[in-house]
Amino acid sequence: MFTTTVTPRFGDMDVLGHINNTVPVVWFELARNPLIKIFDPALELKRETFSLIMAHSDYDYIDQLYYRYDVEIKTWISRIGTKSFTACHEAWQQRRLCVKGSAVMVHYDFNTEKSTPIPDDKKTLLAEHLLRA
Amino acid sequence: MFTTTVTPRFGDMDVLGHINNTVPVVWFELARNPLIKIFDPALELKRETFSLIMAHSDYDYIDQLYYRYDVEIKTWISRIGTKSFTACHEAWQQRRLCVKGSAVMVHYDFNTEKSTPIPDDKKTLLAEHLLRA
Amino acid sequence: MFTTTVTPRFGDMDVLGHINNTVPVVWFELARNPLIKIFDPALELKRETFSLIMAHSDYDYIDQLYYRYDVEIKTWISRIGTKSFTACHEAWQQRRLCVKGSAVMVHYDFNTEKSTPIPDDKKTLLAEHLLRA
Amino acid sequence: MFTTTVTPRFGDMDVLGHINNTVPVVWFELARNPLIKIFDPALELKRETFSLIMAHSDYDYIDQLYYRYDVEIKTWISRIGTKSFTACHEAWQQRRLCVKGSAVMVHYDFNTEKSTPIPDDKKTLLAEHLLRA
Repeated sequence: MFTTTVTPRFGDMDVLGHINNTVPVVWFELARNPLIKIFDPALELKRETFSLIMAHSDYDYIDQLYYRYDVEIKTWISRIGTKSFTACHEAWQQRRLCVKGSAVMVHYDFNTEKSTPIPDDKKTLLAEHLLRA
Repeated sequence: MFTTTVTPRFGDMDVLGHINNTVPVVWFELARNPLIKIFDPALELKRETFSLIMAHSDYDYIDQLYYRYDVEIKTWISRIGTKSFTACHEAWQQRRLCVKGSAVMVHYDFNTEKSTPIPDDKKTLLAEHLLRA
Repeated sequence: MFTTTVTPRFGDMDVLGHINNTVPVVWFELARNPLIKIFDPALELKRETFSLIMAHSDYDYIDQLYYRYDVEIKTWISRIGTKSFTACHEAWQQRRLCVKGSAVMVHYDFNTEKSTPIPDDKKTLLAEHLLRA
Repeated sequence: MFTTTVTPRFGDMDVLGHINNTVPVVWFELARNPLIKIFDPALELKRETFSLIMAHSDYDYIDQLYYRYDVEIKTWISRIGTKSFTACHEAWQQRRLCVKGSAVMVHYDFNTEKSTPIPDDKKTLLAEHLLRA
């Protein structure tokens, strides 16, 4: 499991005084940084060689998040398929689970615009973070 | 059904040369502006009187979105329950369906922090935009 | 002069009930779309061939912007130098000038990481939008 | 001086492979969190009692920022006036100064929509972070 701590900024609040629902979306993207390093260890970050594309994401907003406290994002892998895997995220604040979500990432060739099998060495690295959803 | 047209900005692209997956999240929020007007017609926009909170959202990324062309967001209501309803969104670019998603909005009292029944007059206004998902 | 109309979204408001000061920054980026088309008319959008980089930007927040009304962004060129030019922006809401700002864009070669002279044909296209600041 | 460390996320890069120029704007807002605590120590975060509004900000983009490394934001106060003060920011990556900027914050009464004198006790707290620009 990966853990990332984020500090809310003033503008992350909306007029309701809580963190706007669009904000955990970027926090979860930040929390997937270690997954990018698995698939692009040299961080070439080029369309020609990058191999992940998002197919699906979902977010359950369970409790309100506030500006006042840091937020801990927990991230793990819940499924490793042939051509895709699922990452799970939880956002916790003051021991309250506030948002949980998942992201289905497809192993993808941007040149042919087709999904491709996840190499075995990448599966092994993902499996180190495999937990049930 | 509501339709909103958005123009991508340069920074909406990520290094892969397509629109980053966090961007349709804010576009769909923009596309819900008419729903905010249904529940807060005077646009008081105060925690004391505002009555919507998001419980869930999901996004299916079907095809890549690019900077080059405007994007049309179609929004409708797919379900009206006692205390919540579901909005559906589709993002279209050049006649390609690129993202579809939904948002479950709960009728909520921010003072008591409890869900409350959707008033009948609001249900009627929502029902004008009711389609199957 | 270019004119772009933007519609605020709910999350563009912060807890003070006005549009957060980070929001006009992305609106002004959107308003520079026509300048990108001048320098990259085929919209190749590649580091190898793109030729603009921002050197400076500034923002004067003159009056508060609100969620309720659309915002009109006016954009023009105030200076054309040998290797850089300045774009000016104003954000208007309900006939009130709310934000004005400028952006210094340098003609740049991302391969050599050096500024380069603006070609004459690009200067001519910029000059069509030249006004005093 | 305040120091804040931020980790770039994948979507902070634009198609040029560097951090988009809109991103330091939100990083500098995050870096002003300690100033918000000076003026609203109980973090009431209400329009009725909050007392800061931004009047101006500027950004000098000196060197490119990349996804690969964390960024250190240094923040200090460069000027304390009767009704406003100036915060300065620098974004450093791998010992390279990449962005510097400033923000003029006005002491403001959102009820009367007028600037008001900064109380002496707040000036004393700001002065602890006073450095030349």
